[in-house]
Amino acid sequence: MSTLQTFIERELPKVDAALYALLDNSVMPETLKESMRYSIEAGGKRVRPLLVLAVMEDALGADNTLEERYAIAAAIELIHTYSLIHDDLPAMDDDDYRRGKLTNHKKFGEAMAILAGDAMQAMAFQSIAEAYAIPADMRIELVQLLARASGADGMVGGQVLDLEGETRQLSLEELEHVHIHKTGALLTYSIEAGAILSRMCEYERSELKRYAHHIGLAFQIKDDILDVTSTTEQLGKPANSDEASEKSTYPAILGLAQSKDQMESHYTQAIDAIAFFQEGSLLHQFAHYIIDRNL
Amino acid sequence: MSTLQTFIERELPKVDAALYALLDNSVMPETLKESMRYSIEAGGKRVRPLLVLAVMEDALGADNTLEERYAIAAAIELIHTYSLIHDDLPAMDDDDYRRGKLTNHKKFGEAMAILAGDAMQAMAFQSIAEAYAIPADMRIELVQLLARASGADGMVGGQVLDLEGETRQLSLEELEHVHIHKTGALLTYSIEAGAILSRMCEYERSELKRYAHHIGLAFQIKDDILDVTSTTEQLGKPANSDEASEKSTYPAILGLAQSKDQMESHYTQAIDAIAFFQEGSLLHQFAHYIIDRNL
Repeated sequence: MSTLQTFIERELPKVDAALYALLDNSVMPETLKESMRYSIEAGGKRVRPLLVLAVMEDALGADNTLEERYAIAAAIELIHTYSLIHDDLPAMDDDDYRRGKLTNHKKFGEAMAILAGDAMQAMAFQSIAEAYAIPADMRIELVQLLARASGADGMVGGQVLDLEGETRQLSLEELEHVHIHKTGALLTYSIEAGAILSRMCEYERSELKRYAHHIGLAFQIKDDILDVTSTTEQLGKPANSDEASEKSTYPAILGLAQSKDQMESHYTQAIDAIAFFQEGSLLHQFAHYIIDRNL
Repeated sequence: MSTLQTFIERELPKVDAALYALLDNSVMPETLKESMRYSIEAGGKRVRPLLVLAVMEDALGADNTLEERYAIAAAIELIHTYSLIHDDLPAMDDDDYRRGKLTNHKKFGEAMAILAGDAMQAMAFQSIAEAYAIPADMRIELVQLLARASGADGMVGGQVLDLEGETRQLSLEELEHVHIHKTGALLTYSIEAGAILSRMCEYERSELKRYAHHIGLAFQIKDDILDVTSTTEQLGKPANSDEASEKSTYPAILGLAQSKDQMESHYTQAIDAIAFFQEGSLLHQFAHYIIDRNL
């Protein structure tokens, strides 16, 4: 069984290659390509595409031959990246830096940032649709679920809730509702996509969605905790920015100790949901990584 | 054979119903739904969805029973509407009014306008994916072509070219290149989608794309001509706005008389491409309407 580290080192370059192949297989104005490439290169942890691949490796082994799984993984990263570009815009979070680099609109201007995000969303659906080695009925299911997960019912709806919540302190329930939509829907989709591509049964698929729900919330609580306990240098963005902006966070609502308890509880429930995978599977390691990371 | 007027009166309410059904079948924050509904209600001529339906009626007759063609038609209108919302943003064209109503961001704020547009794009792909009566391989082809037509290779790429062209006078060739992408790609898709849903042969499909190319350019030239020759009241937006903003237009490059000649030439070529349809078909009438309209 792979360690998470070996797995990531092996798979990450293939996810990146799929992303660049999408850019290179399109005929578009150079400035647009440059702007899209800039935000794709800005990198990040590629958690979502790696989750697709981790589910598949846990289910089918490391030698599964469906090369076009990378096209699905890339699609999800494109949706995530477009959402960050739009979230950073002056009308939204108004951020100048992300991961230590200028945000897209600071580098290319607002108009280009809006359009680069729009083009990435279309490219995500294109990537799935053009993964021709995957049967048509599977591709269209992947499109359907991604549209729901990323749109008004999911990620975009969550972003609206988040913006509306900025003007007041949210309850714990409201905060969870925001996260389940804003970040949870796409994380859950990543894991469900892996399950679909692995042709897992309905029971395992629904258990994996339960896993996704809990690691999604654990991930978010950990983010909030890191914002309080890390330095600006470690984060690549200003530390304590949540408190400064009076954002609703787990530490603000529950305090640091109880936030950690909640995170542990979600971790335990996530592990419980993947009882059908061997201990030490990539998803086990992922869950552990999420609550243990410093970044 | 239907007159265009009868056809539009019969079909328009069904397109609108499909659009509202999509909104109502989603669970989203009320503010987001309101903002999306506002721009969908703002109406417009619904040229693109009507083109899908017109091709199908010319090919199959008025009594074809594929109800889910309206879901495809609605998807295209959603892409068109999202592009208008984003184009109107301050960072882009900075328009306060469209079709005589406040633009989305003037009414709901910039953040909501960006997000409503993003959600509409996702909903477009969802609408196709969930049109379950259509075979999966046809749905995924419709997704694939829409992604290409609306993204970096098509509409969004054209918008980038348009923005870049604003700082200087374009040549006729450059101007056509902008229109072929910015508006032509989605018009062509509308017609191709109708051809796919009607299971037309490759030859007819390629001829219909030729028709689409020419009516797309004729449509654009007519728009430019109307901007010069209409009043503000007729247009629902300031007349002569192109000249005021020093936009590259056909009348600016060719003069009014030669622009009309070009438009007529595109009309003739469009009609030539649909020789396999009876004279007086809806597509014949559409082509005629496009060059003859006052609005």
